[in-house]
Amino acid sequence: MSFSVICSRCSNYRRMATEWKCSCGAPFKVVLQEKFKKEKIIRSNRSLWRYFHFFPYVRKEKIVSLGEGWTPLVRVKENLWFKLDYLMPTGSFKDRGSSVLISGLLSEISEVSGISEDSSGNAGASISAYCARAGIKSKIYVPEKASGQKMLQILSYGAQVFKVRGSREEVSKKAQEVDEGYIYAGHAWHPYFRDGIRTLAYEIAEQTRWKNFDYVYLPVSSGTLLLGFMDGEKHMYDSGIIDSIPRVVASQTTQVSPVYHKLRNLPYSPPLEVNTVADALVSTNPPLLEEMVNTLKAMNGDAEVVSEEEILNAHNLLAKSGFYVEPSSAVAFAAYLKHLREGTTNKNKRALVVLTGIGLKSQLLNENYL
Amino acid sequence: MSFSVICSRCSNYRRMATEWKCSCGAPFKVVLQEKFKKEKIIRSNRSLWRYFHFFPYVRKEKIVSLGEGWTPLVRVKENLWFKLDYLMPTGSFKDRGSSVLISGLLSEISEVSGISEDSSGNAGASISAYCARAGIKSKIYVPEKASGQKMLQILSYGAQVFKVRGSREEVSKKAQEVDEGYIYAGHAWHPYFRDGIRTLAYEIAEQTRWKNFDYVYLPVSSGTLLLGFMDGEKHMYDSGIIDSIPRVVASQTTQVSPVYHKLRNLPYSPPLEVNTVADALVSTNPPLLEEMVNTLKAMNGDAEVVSEEEILNAHNLLAKSGFYVEPSSAVAFAAYLKHLREGTTNKNKRALVVLTGIGLKSQLLNENYL
Repeated sequence: MSFSVICSRCSNYRRMATEWKCSCGAPFKVVLQEKFKKEKIIRSNRSLWRYFHFFPYVRKEKIVSLGEGWTPLVRVKENLWFKLDYLMPTGSFKDRGSSVLISGLLSEISEVSGISEDSSGNAGASISAYCARAGIKSKIYVPEKASGQKMLQILSYGAQVFKVRGSREEVSKKAQEVDEGYIYAGHAWHPYFRDGIRTLAYEIAEQTRWKNFDYVYLPVSSGTLLLGFMDGEKHMYDSGIIDSIPRVVASQTTQVSPVYHKLRNLPYSPPLEVNTVADALVSTNPPLLEEMVNTLKAMNGDAEVVSEEEILNAHNLLAKSGFYVEPSSAVAFAAYLKHLREGTTNKNKRALVVLTGIGLKSQLLNENYL
Repeated sequence: MSFSVICSRCSNYRRMATEWKCSCGAPFKVVLQEKFKKEKIIRSNRSLWRYFHFFPYVRKEKIVSLGEGWTPLVRVKENLWFKLDYLMPTGSFKDRGSSVLISGLLSEISEVSGISEDSSGNAGASISAYCARAGIKSKIYVPEKASGQKMLQILSYGAQVFKVRGSREEVSKKAQEVDEGYIYAGHAWHPYFRDGIRTLAYEIAEQTRWKNFDYVYLPVSSGTLLLGFMDGEKHMYDSGIIDSIPRVVASQTTQVSPVYHKLRNLPYSPPLEVNTVADALVSTNPPLLEEMVNTLKAMNGDAEVVSEEEILNAHNLLAKSGFYVEPSSAVAFAAYLKHLREGTTNKNKRALVVLTGIGLKSQLLNENYL
């Protein structure tokens, strides 16, 4: 299977595997030249690597796996399903991206000392875990005030953690100034990270026997989940494997809602200080914003915003039904409930909510919730 | 498929589904009359309910599932595998027991208001989650000083929590004084809980294509993991599905090691206060002790003890390889490392370590570890 890596804005080709940003300033993306074929699924493999043949830049002997993917799809009502993408090696869906990213980098580059990444959250934990598994080093750059369960997890995996004073942009900049032998693989930038999320779409389709949903609700921050998922849907649709693409609803918080606003051509200015219980959804100006909005428009997607009260209510409902997730994951369920209430969807539509992070990770739950 | 529920000591039959202890004082166990057949596996089901046909006391329409089981089996060295049984809906292997227990009870008893259980740890979290999923109430009895992530999790699922002053036995006694409509389903006592763990043995066998391990290392406290696993192995062996049973090593801490001592006919007196980093392994006198030792003897099993230092070292090695588990889970890996060091096993033997609880649950990690 052949593929290319091109700029998501100007379509220029990427020249080297270590290049993480186009000279025009936009992120790269992976474009596949071949079709999805059901017979290429390795059905005996109980991980996302059952779709190995659709990742042509990964060499089999370079796969770095912690058993990620092939997560449960649970039917909770007549027409409502949850995809439990928090049942992952590091407790979040990010492991899809990290496993593919690290495997891809090690397939293409022979000498990798370590990876540099900026995130104090799920992505930082995930990337440091996969570096640990691969036996390479990781340098994780975090805001000065970073703390909590996720930070503890990052440290446990043996990552070197650097606290950076200043804005979120300054944290990223520091991570991008890589040392000899290190590769900057920021999850919001590197095309292989987002590309790993394609497996989520494949799994859902396979688990429903290729009968797609009417609506899929995703929490959206940096955009890797949204774009990776839609890439996977598009790949299957273009290959004639599924006969429709679900209406994807990018679910955001009132405070952090650049996608929602841009999709509706509304002005958006983030609050001076973001202070939401959904503390994993904090990208007020993500590099993938433009592409997210273009993709949602092209694929008949939608966006929704929910309040803090709606998030806590949705989180509580989930936990009281046995699904213990991060408040950030509850944002997607809150958007579904809002759509149901307002008539945007109804109980006859087949809906899926993707639950992305495990409740045990949340520091906010400890302090404020009970 | 037919079955019976008999006393594990005097072989008396259980009279009612709500009876959790034989009149002789010993726990009951499930005995299957029919063989394991590969063609009865529901291969399209991505959960432990793929083995539904081997649980004859569960009615299909009464299954309570959160997507548990069918966890990853990851090869980490030439002859070393990890079974990631922490990738479960509530973060521990206990979900095998809870899903089968609650499904079984609801299949047999038409009017269940709620479940009563004594545990401030993984079992309490697991049982309260499955009660939440089933839409029934749960009363969880815990020691007075219970706190931390697991307690928070139990409360989040909506359980009523009762703190009991006094010894661990007094906590159990309180839980056993059930209210009208409630059923005492203590995980260390109820036969269906332990019986659910059979699925672990089935999964491992299926995932290795019925080629068994030489050694399997399990952390052991109340004994449900050990006995449930060995029940499953025996069922497959007696059915002619596997041609050998692995040597199971019951792994305990120096402080809490009743199985290790009894197996070797050594005297054991627990410390006045148990104070181990493996805070999920605290059963100094489990109801299943006698049966554990008899079963280990009959099936050529072994037991090992490890020190606090060995546990922390094993935990650190696991995390630095990408496997972030509870310190209690690291006990089994510590026992494996000790066996390797002392020559009890060697690198030519195929070994499996079962990792049972997710690292994010551990309160001790927060305070003492880093």
